Formats: sequence, structure tokens, C-alpha cells
Amino acid sequence: MILNSFKIAVCQMKILEHKEENLSKAEKMIKEASSKGCDLVVLPEMFNCPYNNAFFPKYAEEFPGKTSSLLSKLAKSQGIYIVGGSIPEKDEEKIYNTSYIFDKSGKIVGKHRKMHLFDIDVEDGISFKESDTLGPGNYVTVFDTEFCKVGIAICYDMRFPELMRLMTLRGAEIIVVPAAFNMTTGPAHWHPLTKIRALDNQVYFVAASPARDLDSSYIAYGHSLILDPWGDIVSEAGIKEEIIYGTIDLNKVKEIREQLPLLKHRRDDIYKLDELSVH
Amino acid sequence: MILNSFKIAVCQMKILEHKEENLSKAEKMIKEASSKGCDLVVLPEMFNCPYNNAFFPKYAEEFPGKTSSLLSKLAKSQGIYIVGGSIPEKDEEKIYNTSYIFDKSGKIVGKHRKMHLFDIDVEDGISFKESDTLGPGNYVTVFDTEFCKVGIAICYDMRFPELMRLMTLRGAEIIVVPAAFNMTTGPAHWHPLTKIRALDNQVYFVAASPARDLDSSYIAYGHSLILDPWGDIVSEAGIKEEIIYGTIDLNKVKEIREQLPLLKHRRDDIYKLDELSVH
Repeated sequence: MILNSFKIAVCQMKILEHKEENLSKAEKMIKEASSKGCDLVVLPEMFNCPYNNAFFPKYAEEFPGKTSSLLSKLAKSQGIYIVGGSIPEKDEEKIYNTSYIFDKSGKIVGKHRKMHLFDIDVEDGISFKESDTLGPGNYVTVFDTEFCKVGIAICYDMRFPELMRLMTLRGAEIIVVPAAFNMTTGPAHWHPLTKIRALDNQVYFVAASPARDLDSSYIAYGHSLILDPWGDIVSEAGIKEEIIYGTIDLNKVKEIREQLPLLKHRRDDIYKLDELSVH
Repeated sequence: MILNSFKIAVCQMKILEHKEENLSKAEKMIKEASSKGCDLVVLPEMFNCPYNNAFFPKYAEEFPGKTSSLLSKLAKSQGIYIVGGSIPEKDEEKIYNTSYIFDKSGKIVGKHRKMHLFDIDVEDGISFKESDTLGPGNYVTVFDTEFCKVGIAICYDMRFPELMRLMTLRGAEIIVVPAAFNMTTGPAHWHPLTKIRALDNQVYFVAASPARDLDSSYIAYGHSLILDPWGDIVSEAGIKEEIIYGTIDLNKVKEIREQLPLLKHRRDDIYKLDELSVH
């Protein structure tokens, strides 16, 4: 029964201006999490690059590249799964906000390109237009582990209940979201939104933020979270750089899905949610 | 521009054992809300009947019946819309958990039968099986007013993001949910769930609960809520019997949908949500 329970970590990194520094930091934090017996380690969105349109083209890498090779090497040497937050990915003439996922042998087992680009303009709040530099991904991403299936989305993707549900319908029991909410959307929505995504889909929900850096042009909210399928907090970071840990108990997913059978009670005779382009 | 703003009320009634008393109470509260200049008044789930399977068949009415006729008469005499919470409805051999909606002339303009029946069994918490006595509705309900379109769902229905989204895609700018969360699900989920439904769909979300009655076999949570399209609370009840009021500002719906364009950013080239049986 040991496979029904395993340990995960979220590295709430402070993102610096230089890529090399970010890679060293990621390596150090991943090794620390691994030394604590974690099977899966998660990094935040854009962990190798400041969250700023001016940096994305400059920091972008093709696959395989420096960052993905480092993550693959670390996954293998530590014998852990790594959800590599995200980085700017260059593919031909386009740049994407992409998460690479590696298994314990260092093999790539998933790649998610952010599907919903963050173009917002809130009065007296945040303005950002990702689509100025980035292209959108076109596929839902769920990967297999020996424990369970895991769904991946990136930041603004989590605002779309359809995508969260599609990953669940594909069998995900954990949804992992590298994300960088800011000082407008974070205080307003971060906690209730992650909670309800966990609850609606009766999954463990893992949201990985960068640490808050008041000197950055884009100030991330912090508060990385691991939530259980009832929506309760398993572990929460503060605003500074730190690693949080949590145990994923797959028996709990099963129990909650039996006690409050939301997935069974869906009226799929009345509404139908389809995925139009399957990878 | 006066049509862009109007006032609504939620009557957080204490439900009593006798139907007559409940109807008198509803009448009194509706008249009070109307005297304050409300255009739309909402009652809670099962407002004429204790929330208990033993009572549903006994209190059930065909349409038109005593309760629906009273609501129609009040809507006309007061010149207001009434979302009549819900009552047990008898139709041939079946009973439904049904909300009748009347316009300012007393005409019925909508009827929603709860689509998702509340069959849950939480360890050390609530157990209830609506399907022991009730049948499920099979249609999504959105009705027209001179202000905007309004979607209606009942209690457990709100746990299904697909239904909330379908009402929004049909044009609802307000979603009204007569509901009776309990002392397990209320503290755990009521506030974040209503908040995220408002936010995800960028609608005003109106959740109408009975008052909390510690002597009842089913103890409702109370805390009726009116939330704006950013997920912020416009008005909230305590746990006792009271009427709460709120102004619906349709310009705000428009503004939020422009500043954080979630509905525009849905990837309907990647996922598709269809309604299979349209009334």
C-alpha cells in the first residue's frame, strides 16, 4: 500500500535577474527537497527568468537546452519527478510559457504550454499582456506516475474551470500549477480559487509561486499551497523563499470522492465537456 | 441608464414546521423588501417546508398550487420579480425540488427543478439522500428581465461548474441560488464556493439560505450572500432571520469582463461545453 502515499515539495524560489543564479538556486532547492525524501518536486512559473515580457525572448531556450538538461539530470541523479515550473521556450519563431516534466530516470514525460495567455488590465491594479511576446499552447497535459495521474496547468490556466475538469476527467488525482499571481490578483483570489479547484475536482491541488520580491517589476504574491481534495490546506508558504512539503494520500482522494460524490453526480446526460484537440 | 442598476433582496427566512406559518412569513418579508424599493426578491430553498425527506411528499404541491399562487399574487401586487426559493413540487407521481419565478405582472417566467440531487455521506458530518424522495430536473434555467438575464440553480447544483458556466454562456449576468448548506458543508465551503462561482463567471452571485435553526433536524448554515463579479461581498446575512439588500450594477459586470477578460479568453477551440437537452 506504500504507493498510496508519497511526499511532494514546492520550491518557492526568489527569482533573480540572472539565469545562472536561478539555475543554481533551483538545483540547490531541488537537492534539499530530495534529501527530505520527496518523490515529486515542483518549481514556480518562469523560474529561470524575471516575469517580464522584455526578458522572455532573451531567456528563451529550445528543447533540449541548458535549463531542461539540468532538470533532467537532477531528476535522474536524485531519482525524483520534477515539474519544472515553467520557462520561456523557443520553438521555431515562437516563444511559449512551458513546463517540462521529468520522471525518475530523467526522461521527459510531459510538456505543458500555457494555454490561456495572461492579458489583463485591472483599473488601479495590474496590467500585463503576455501575448505581446508569447504564443498559446494547444493541449491539455496529464502525465503518468507509478502513484497516480498528474495534471499540469500554468497560472492563468487555473482560472478556467473547463481545463481543470478536463484534467480530472482524464484521471488526474493531483493538479499541479506553477503560477505567479501578483499583488492585485493574489490577495483577491489566490486562496479561494486554489481551494475551489481542489474541491470541485476532488484532487490534491499544488500551486507553486515565486517568493515575493518587492524590487521586481512584477511582484509575485507568494503563498505557495498544497490543498487536499476537501479544499483544506496541507501546507502553505509565507512570502519569502522557502520549501514547503506535503504528503499526498491517495486514499483520501478516494474517500472524499465517495463521501461527496461530485464526479459521480455530474449530469453528463445534460451537459458534455469535450476536448477538441488531443495530443 | 436607470436599467443598468437595480436593487435586490434576499429573505433569509427561518423555516418553521407548518406550511401556513412559512407562507405568512414569506409574504411579510417579501412585502417588507418590496417597500424598500427592490425589483427582485429571493427566497431560500424549501422555504415552505422543513428540509427533511419525511416532509417533502406531505408538503408537495402541483402547479398552480397554494404556494405558487401566493407568490404570483405578491409579484403582481408589489410589482416585483420573485425567485420563489424552492418548494417540493408534485408532478404526476414524482416530486421535485423546484423554484418558480414570477415577473412583475405575476406571470411565471421560469421554473427550475434541482438537477443534481444531494446524496452525501460525510464521515463525522452530514448524511442526506434527496433521491430517496425526489426526482432530478433535466434543464438549465435562465430567464429574462428588462435588466438582464438571470440564471437559477438550487443548492447542490452550484457545486457543478459546468452548470454555472452554461447559464453564463446563455447570457446570465446574475446567478441566483436558493440553497441550504449545513453545518458540515457551510463552514467548509459556502464562502469560497460562492465567491469563485461569481468570479469564474463574472456575474453577480446571489445565494439565499434559510436562517440557522438549532432545533431543526437539518441545521442550515445561514450567511446568505450577494457577491459582485470580482467575487467581493456586496451584502451578507448573519445566522438569524433577516433581509439583506444589494444593488446590482450591470456596468460593473461589463467593466470586470473587460479588465479581466475570462469569458473572452476561454479556449473554445480546445474545449467545448455543450448543453444536451435545451428546454
